[in-house]
Amino acid sequence: MPFPKKVKIVEVGPRDGLQNEKQLVSVDTKVELVDRLTQAGLSAVEAGSFVSPKWVPQMADSDKVLAQVKKADGVSFPVLTPNMKGFEAAMEAGAKEVAIFAAASEGFSQKNINCSIAESIERFEPIMAAAKEQDIAVRGYVSCVVGCPYDGAIAPEKVAEVSTRLYDMGCYEISLGDTIGVGTPAKVAEMIAAVSQTVPIGKLAGHFHDTYGQALANIYAALELGIHVFDSSVAGLGGCPYAKGASGNVATEDVVFMLNGLGIETGVDLATLCEAGRYISQSLGRVPASKVSLALSAQ
Amino acid sequence: MPFPKKVKIVEVGPRDGLQNEKQLVSVDTKVELVDRLTQAGLSAVEAGSFVSPKWVPQMADSDKVLAQVKKADGVSFPVLTPNMKGFEAAMEAGAKEVAIFAAASEGFSQKNINCSIAESIERFEPIMAAAKEQDIAVRGYVSCVVGCPYDGAIAPEKVAEVSTRLYDMGCYEISLGDTIGVGTPAKVAEMIAAVSQTVPIGKLAGHFHDTYGQALANIYAALELGIHVFDSSVAGLGGCPYAKGASGNVATEDVVFMLNGLGIETGVDLATLCEAGRYISQSLGRVPASKVSLALSAQ
Repeated sequence: MPFPKKVKIVEVGPRDGLQNEKQLVSVDTKVELVDRLTQAGLSAVEAGSFVSPKWVPQMADSDKVLAQVKKADGVSFPVLTPNMKGFEAAMEAGAKEVAIFAAASEGFSQKNINCSIAESIERFEPIMAAAKEQDIAVRGYVSCVVGCPYDGAIAPEKVAEVSTRLYDMGCYEISLGDTIGVGTPAKVAEMIAAVSQTVPIGKLAGHFHDTYGQALANIYAALELGIHVFDSSVAGLGGCPYAKGASGNVATEDVVFMLNGLGIETGVDLATLCEAGRYISQSLGRVPASKVSLALSAQ
Repeated sequence: MPFPKKVKIVEVGPRDGLQNEKQLVSVDTKVELVDRLTQAGLSAVEAGSFVSPKWVPQMADSDKVLAQVKKADGVSFPVLTPNMKGFEAAMEAGAKEVAIFAAASEGFSQKNINCSIAESIERFEPIMAAAKEQDIAVRGYVSCVVGCPYDGAIAPEKVAEVSTRLYDMGCYEISLGDTIGVGTPAKVAEMIAAVSQTVPIGKLAGHFHDTYGQALANIYAALELGIHVFDSSVAGLGGCPYAKGASGNVATEDVVFMLNGLGIETGVDLATLCEAGRYISQSLGRVPASKVSLALSAQ
């Protein structure tokens, strides 16, 4: 078995998931969701985003969520901080870990945040300096690591360049995001191989969207290369399969089922996790976008 | 790249898919579906089942479907024949290829067809003899190759034993079916490794259900072992994710998307295939159970 014995799952449902949901979710519901996720054994739950409420109204109450979730030893609640204003607000709210992000695609960077990749990274320098001073861990997200809705296929070398830049700036881990879910296992493996030339494989995480149903196959290919951290979203939060622009984070339940089958430890209890997914899905008035959850419900 | 250059897809939607659909589909619609599938480039389309209409009313008109579908060089239309009566009816309807089946699980065999695995295989001997005489190709299905709803986990050695028996009887290919979709890549790989001790890997096909979302990861693991034939069902026909006992064949569209990404030839045109899937899904009054189809529609 070439696989890692343990895998860390970074649960991104309460942030990356919910931020794509039009329907506003109350603070109480978000707190309940995060608490259920930590009860299920997840050791990293992305709890919110300190971004302008004008752009992402769903995340406007991240300070309240962060303040109210039950803290536990060994459990981190990273929050997204797009700029110094966000970072300062996150610090005020008591965040101990933040995340920053850059695209591997110039087209995506320009259309999404109206600046080049290089400019976007430079803007994070004050955050990195402040984080270092305050002993705050910073995680780096790289988006569009396989394909981009504007630029098409992305060269693995470009992903390596952006990832290395974030890693060299001080990010403790680089999460490689297939934002539009077009990756297939060989392309994902080629991309990871390129990035791991300059960022140690143990510092990389896989973040696969299941838009085209490929996420688990991609995770399997990444596991074979030694990646042992994966981002996923309980109940597949954040993607609506029937809507234009469906993003679709891979469902945490489906990832845990595969890892259980592979004999890889995650520390996550699948039944409790499924309950958390059903809780939030019910709040949103739908069924979980997780095949495992649906199959287990049907039993 | 250790992967095969070409993969053959055996499209099972019109049989294994539709037979699980409660809603009766007309002969015209079935014929149109099969014709669209062959137009998409599929070279093997399972066209029906010659089983008692009392048990599977959806398949009662398989003779008419087989008679009416457009034949083309190099395209086969296998039909399922559970017994000599079915085999004779299939011959009368002009079938050139048939399929027989056995379970790798005693519990499943007993509950499903009320006899032991050994007895079920013995009953196929007259079919094998008649098929040999008439130069009819016979494909063998083995079900429950990873897990069984009654017996739980199935030993790889048991799958090897049943597969070898069918192969030695004269089946030209053995399709290994994870009927309840509980397989994960390492277990699937272990099972294939066991079977390939006695049946050449080139004579094995993978038949994965996506009940727990694991099918593509399993196909990927099987490709790594050199398997180059896979069964799948257009639009994921045959599985309803919201119903008890959801079976859920993996969607052909999702398999083709992955194989395209891996640079593996299938001869299938994805756009035409998606149209075929939308055609039958519309007939059934729903959206295709294929993430690729939904994502491409949303573009």
